[in-house]
Amino acid sequence: MFAIRSFNLLCRRSTVSTWRNTSQSAAGKRLDISGIYPPIATPFTQSEDVDYQRLEDNLKKYSNLPFRGLVVQGSNGEYPYLSAEERVEVVKSVKQALPEHKLLMAGSGCESTRGTVLMSQRMAEAGADCLLVVTPCFYRGRMDSRALINHYTKVADSSSVPVVLYSVPANTGLDLPVDAIIQLSQHPNIVGLKDSGGDITRIALIVQKTRSQGFQVLAGSAGFLVPAYAVGAVGGVCALANVLGQQVCDLAQLCVSGRWDEARELQYRLIEPNTAVTRQYGVPALKQAMEWFGYHGGACRSPLQPLSEADLARLRLDFSSNGWL
Amino acid sequence: MFAIRSFNLLCRRSTVSTWRNTSQSAAGKRLDISGIYPPIATPFTQSEDVDYQRLEDNLKKYSNLPFRGLVVQGSNGEYPYLSAEERVEVVKSVKQALPEHKLLMAGSGCESTRGTVLMSQRMAEAGADCLLVVTPCFYRGRMDSRALINHYTKVADSSSVPVVLYSVPANTGLDLPVDAIIQLSQHPNIVGLKDSGGDITRIALIVQKTRSQGFQVLAGSAGFLVPAYAVGAVGGVCALANVLGQQVCDLAQLCVSGRWDEARELQYRLIEPNTAVTRQYGVPALKQAMEWFGYHGGACRSPLQPLSEADLARLRLDFSSNGWL
Amino acid sequence: MFAIRSFNLLCRRSTVSTWRNTSQSAAGKRLDISGIYPPIATPFTQSEDVDYQRLEDNLKKYSNLPFRGLVVQGSNGEYPYLSAEERVEVVKSVKQALPEHKLLMAGSGCESTRGTVLMSQRMAEAGADCLLVVTPCFYRGRMDSRALINHYTKVADSSSVPVVLYSVPANTGLDLPVDAIIQLSQHPNIVGLKDSGGDITRIALIVQKTRSQGFQVLAGSAGFLVPAYAVGAVGGVCALANVLGQQVCDLAQLCVSGRWDEARELQYRLIEPNTAVTRQYGVPALKQAMEWFGYHGGACRSPLQPLSEADLARLRLDFSSNGWL
Amino acid sequence: MFAIRSFNLLCRRSTVSTWRNTSQSAAGKRLDISGIYPPIATPFTQSEDVDYQRLEDNLKKYSNLPFRGLVVQGSNGEYPYLSAEERVEVVKSVKQALPEHKLLMAGSGCESTRGTVLMSQRMAEAGADCLLVVTPCFYRGRMDSRALINHYTKVADSSSVPVVLYSVPANTGLDLPVDAIIQLSQHPNIVGLKDSGGDITRIALIVQKTRSQGFQVLAGSAGFLVPAYAVGAVGGVCALANVLGQQVCDLAQLCVSGRWDEARELQYRLIEPNTAVTRQYGVPALKQAMEWFGYHGGACRSPLQPLSEADLARLRLDFSSNGWL
Repeated sequence: MFAIRSFNLLCRRSTVSTWRNTSQSAAGKRLDISGIYPPIATPFTQSEDVDYQRLEDNLKKYSNLPFRGLVVQGSNGEYPYLSAEERVEVVKSVKQALPEHKLLMAGSGCESTRGTVLMSQRMAEAGADCLLVVTPCFYRGRMDSRALINHYTKVADSSSVPVVLYSVPANTGLDLPVDAIIQLSQHPNIVGLKDSGGDITRIALIVQKTRSQGFQVLAGSAGFLVPAYAVGAVGGVCALANVLGQQVCDLAQLCVSGRWDEARELQYRLIEPNTAVTRQYGVPALKQAMEWFGYHGGACRSPLQPLSEADLARLRLDFSSNGWL
Repeated sequence: MFAIRSFNLLCRRSTVSTWRNTSQSAAGKRLDISGIYPPIATPFTQSEDVDYQRLEDNLKKYSNLPFRGLVVQGSNGEYPYLSAEERVEVVKSVKQALPEHKLLMAGSGCESTRGTVLMSQRMAEAGADCLLVVTPCFYRGRMDSRALINHYTKVADSSSVPVVLYSVPANTGLDLPVDAIIQLSQHPNIVGLKDSGGDITRIALIVQKTRSQGFQVLAGSAGFLVPAYAVGAVGGVCALANVLGQQVCDLAQLCVSGRWDEARELQYRLIEPNTAVTRQYGVPALKQAMEWFGYHGGACRSPLQPLSEADLARLRLDFSSNGWL
Repeated sequence: MFAIRSFNLLCRRSTVSTWRNTSQSAAGKRLDISGIYPPIATPFTQSEDVDYQRLEDNLKKYSNLPFRGLVVQGSNGEYPYLSAEERVEVVKSVKQALPEHKLLMAGSGCESTRGTVLMSQRMAEAGADCLLVVTPCFYRGRMDSRALINHYTKVADSSSVPVVLYSVPANTGLDLPVDAIIQLSQHPNIVGLKDSGGDITRIALIVQKTRSQGFQVLAGSAGFLVPAYAVGAVGGVCALANVLGQQVCDLAQLCVSGRWDEARELQYRLIEPNTAVTRQYGVPALKQAMEWFGYHGGACRSPLQPLSEADLARLRLDFSSNGWL
Repeated sequence: MFAIRSFNLLCRRSTVSTWRNTSQSAAGKRLDISGIYPPIATPFTQSEDVDYQRLEDNLKKYSNLPFRGLVVQGSNGEYPYLSAEERVEVVKSVKQALPEHKLLMAGSGCESTRGTVLMSQRMAEAGADCLLVVTPCFYRGRMDSRALINHYTKVADSSSVPVVLYSVPANTGLDLPVDAIIQLSQHPNIVGLKDSGGDITRIALIVQKTRSQGFQVLAGSAGFLVPAYAVGAVGGVCALANVLGQQVCDLAQLCVSGRWDEARELQYRLIEPNTAVTRQYGVPALKQAMEWFGYHGGACRSPLQPLSEADLARLRLDFSSNGWL
């Protein structure tokens, strides 16, 4: 058998003290994560260092918008390009600038369980209110439900703050299986899921199977926010909210208040801009569009390349043809 | 240039007389295809011949349900397993049994354009009110927008009844590209699309880009019917409607009348049964479930195999655990 | 249980008389299919009818090349675009023109088992020496080993001439599973496999597991002919042989006679032309290249489109840069 | 434009001194990397720490085999589960135990270019003779030839030891494009490619297009070693060599000396064991099989799980049925 005694012991020990709190809060009520979050971009200086000044500028502007909170180091934050130290440092920096009532959801996922446990601990200490934990994926052929349940359980067991599961198949080539999500939804320290895959039938099924646990599903993109609300999602982590933050919050509000016809019309106008800054042209496009709307975007770390002139023109058209530019 | 003069001539000639009518009706209004359709199954005798008696029995039962019409020879009708003669014969047989106010939408897609043109003609003569034309797919590497626009334009040009586009990537390995759909939506004899892929962002985008033409989008599955209505679809061609016809019609009615909370609850209970009779276990499961609900299903033509005992038990559970059995 | 009594009876009856012969020949020796085959293209007139005159012209030229035989209605013959009658008629026409000692391998695959059984019978009567039977694929989610073994067994049971399995995932989205091939290799009337997928490890494994049965594996493309011979294949059905027939035969001969260094050098020069007329630009490119080398290619049936000018230029370059034009 | 001046400056400066040497050696001759390498596994203690003692034991045994060298921290070394410090420490440890005439090829790939540059530098200082640099892949939608050429050029520019490209689509979901490989083969500090995808046509094309540069291609798996040699590969980095090291070296020797018939027979017997310890059951299976053959394998870091009893039995059968156990 696969025995990792001393490591497990560590986890279990930290669990003891931890569980008492989170279990209580679970018995009472889980952390409410409903609402809209921009997964913030990481601005860099010309030498590719993190530009903390520009980051703070962006945060100031975001503080005026009705976000539920911010996601720091989702896929749009280029977290795989940051060192472990940088990842923690950016979380600290955001914490300082964030108004008290806003949630800081920090991406602490690493490929190994021990790495994720450690990073989760450091981010909680740096001020994260909850953790967004992406599926490990390098050995995707072996990342079945057994492995992923094991991984997330250890991470949630040892974390002092609640965990949000994160499935983003476009980047990981892996969909967190529904049966694993259902089982993990029973863990008192796992409060929800960010699903970026966009399979709306799957999202509806997950809501059906987990809502009795108080488990909360967030849409991982503004492209399917209305249909996600229609089947029971309670919010979204939306790259586009970095650019059109008020509009994405408006869209969520229309859904919550049952004004579906208006929601549909606004949804239409956000699909092309959203696709452009995510699936189609990725983080470089998101950062470019941020510049157009008064935020600091700037260049990505290499190997992500700036857009070609042709792509730039198409990106602009996706915003202008929908009335945003 | 690729010249197929005599064939084109034939198409163009038939076009002349045709266009006058369809263009007029398009100028006036397009055929309204909104509502729910079961893509009916084809019952076989023990020797694998079409069982027309059992087919008629099913049709009688369906005539009591508030369907907009029937789809004959969608993927669930095992059309690739029928000879050309059988395909036409089944359409004729359904026409005779169908109440006058119901639409008969017949699947006339073949791999070649000339085959599809011919089959469309025969089906219109056999009584089809409109045609469901699946994307040709064997040479999928070459089936780009240019090829597909060319194909559908020739088919629609030469057809005496309106055409509905049909994209079903699970079977064809091919998604009809959005840009092709947008261009084809301007053809006066192409009235809509059945989209079975289930990418809800794509469906919303198609509605946004084609609704000014009066183009109508039908969900290709009951699994995402509520979100599809939420983004502007006007109906569905739903395998599950062969089994739970009233419930699927109820679901559509809840959406149409804006009762979204009730719709969501009913939607949840239909997801697992729907997945089971489509993606998961396919046509053999659909026909098995039909038996449980008083319809004739029976065996499929070979090489489709009956379900294993284990799959059968899981299929039953997907219905019973949602309160349908 | 799934009972198709009268149909099975038909198959089984024809089996009785058939088996005696094929079993004997299997006990003695199986049909030797080793060598090179062009999967011939189907020329069309400008009105998209089969151009039998041009077909005969091509056959005359092929008769001077050291082919083992011809494949009629493989994927390159546009068989999915021919009617059942045309498929048989083309086989008859080729039979008349073919020198006696050459094999006529005819593609008789249909989606349904009964369709394939019938087509196989008609093609054998039309003069086919053996049959190339593609995997049915429309319901690919259900086409597991059980279904495919069942399908091929029925076809081989009822066929009066030997059967060659045919796996072409680029067109079908389906790889005939290795375990199914191993089991089917034991059938006395199944003599080999054409594998167009190009997974060389898989090909080697199939040879290892089936050679004791006298089962023969043919590479489905000239692009991996040398490595296929290196792991035990005995020939190839190569689209490129329609264009560079002598060269492909030379390549096979170099392999058979163990002149691997020369083989490698020739192999290199065939890869780009081969990829161009198959995966990259498909049948329209094959037919275009045939024109350059003195054969009748011409246009494809719609919806296959002629190449764009840009693709045409790249196609030419793939031949010229390797010294063939 | 995307300017990262100070960072580039750093790279360029280090380049100046570096280039003089590597350019000379390129003018003279490139580092010869031909031969067989096991991509060594990383043993862990029960607490999941690196077990340096067991690692050394393995290295002692490997030193008796005719390997060209070792790969440290390929995919089989669980490098994504090691911290940056551990990655360097393991390289140092292997360097000390490695006989002088053997090559130490160290995996220095990270997601970011700056991370890879830094890690490459540290590994070279730790004793790596050359670097194996995996394609970055998290933002795979943006990892086109432009981005990857840019990435590898910066890494090779700044590295004091030669670079080997590494394409492993099963783990990364990304194939390093052939056009990028061709361009990168002209860089004096990029000496070859490890290709684990197994597309033999692609491998042959790469050899054809790069051999004039002295670029060397290594098969990334023992499963297609013979066909890879047949089309011009010069060696292999083979997981199976951790278990059946002598046999994999024998196989290479048979190919090099032109004894293709014997090579084929040995190749057959290695396919199933190879598939089992790679694609099928992954690193946990490799480490299990190492135990059977006298090496220290042990458990993987979590989330990789030990094999189930059923998989264990199948793994054993894949070795025993081929005569190895």
